[in-house]
Amino acid sequence: MKLYSAPDPAPNPRRVRIFMVEKGIAMPEVMVSLRDREHKAPEFRAKNPWGQVPTLELDDGRTISETVAICRYLEALHPTPPLFGRDAFEQAEVEMWTRRVELTLMTPVGMFWRHAHPYTAHLLTQYKDFGESNRDLYMAACTLIDRALADGRPFLVGEAYTMADICAQSTVDFASFTGLEPPESAAHLAAWRARVSARPSAQPNARIADAA
Amino acid sequence: MKLYSAPDPAPNPRRVRIFMVEKGIAMPEVMVSLRDREHKAPEFRAKNPWGQVPTLELDDGRTISETVAICRYLEALHPTPPLFGRDAFEQAEVEMWTRRVELTLMTPVGMFWRHAHPYTAHLLTQYKDFGESNRDLYMAACTLIDRALADGRPFLVGEAYTMADICAQSTVDFASFTGLEPPESAAHLAAWRARVSARPSAQPNARIADAA
Repeated sequence: MKLYSAPDPAPNPRRVRIFMVEKGIAMPEVMVSLRDREHKAPEFRAKNPWGQVPTLELDDGRTISETVAICRYLEALHPTPPLFGRDAFEQAEVEMWTRRVELTLMTPVGMFWRHAHPYTAHLLTQYKDFGESNRDLYMAACTLIDRALADGRPFLVGEAYTMADICAQSTVDFASFTGLEPPESAAHLAAWRARVSARPSAQPNARIADAA
Repeated sequence: MKLYSAPDPAPNPRRVRIFMVEKGIAMPEVMVSLRDREHKAPEFRAKNPWGQVPTLELDDGRTISETVAICRYLEALHPTPPLFGRDAFEQAEVEMWTRRVELTLMTPVGMFWRHAHPYTAHLLTQYKDFGESNRDLYMAACTLIDRALADGRPFLVGEAYTMADICAQSTVDFASFTGLEPPESAAHLAAWRARVSARPSAQPNARIADAA
């Protein structure tokens, strides 16, 4: 298998790298230049018509795209430690939190990045007032997560670090890269962030060295 | 168990109803009035702090929110017919397609609904030019799905009808409700839509009658 990927700060490739380090999985990474728009080129679209990284290519040539789908496939091959939940209820909680992160936390970060950030201004048509309005949505989502963590749980679903934490930490770190910070009042979120950021998997471009 | 829900055309509650009909699951549905903002009231936020339906309440009082998380929990209790894939690769494909639908197809529909539709104009601050710009993104996503279906597969992941189809059909139907239609050139998408719409689960507010 090999992973078509991109270096930090791209949040989705980073999620798969964090996941692989937590699992102890080594895999060749083929870096696709987002700056040179290689992910939109016909050669890459033959692997993923959506033109997005990461994309996993199996040894038989089949491909899987979308971060969480790639990680779910790797979880089936490498079940330990479980990062998608240990029983039916925890599996549902991992999915619930992953979706809250994607739909409520990551969406405003993505919209801010596309519509209000100088970096993308020359690449895309921006609706800047709309883009700026996502600052408040991001803060509100941070506050909802902070309130959930106020019960003392170390990670989003409870005692276990899971895929939901991976999605949330990569989102919060990418948000910081774009200039968005959680509200200062979100002390539980800040403590959680320090906790997940101390893990070896969270270090810049962390990965397990290839055997090859 | 009971489901806090809302009638058609709300797309997320409909997804759980379709899923339950496909599985043959009967469950009491408690309708939450979105028009009266009951989903944002403190009583409901005690069950789901995000203030969204659907939310599943277990007999012990624990709750699960987010459509796909609820359905994944029900899949664990009622594995047949499998709607999240039959092996590791198909499970990853279901997740991949579900995410493509949510992030690429549903996001522009939701943004159009919030920012350009007259129904929400008095409820929310709209950025109308941005909202209108989502028409093209929706059409582009429809075209990507149409191209994937051009290989003759009956459903998104292949031979099996899955959760990914449920997410896509409820999205396309909700888009029509808001005034967005797929491009006329998308013949494979239209054929798929006719196929999934003919299923008993797709009929308006379809559900399995409660035994009670």
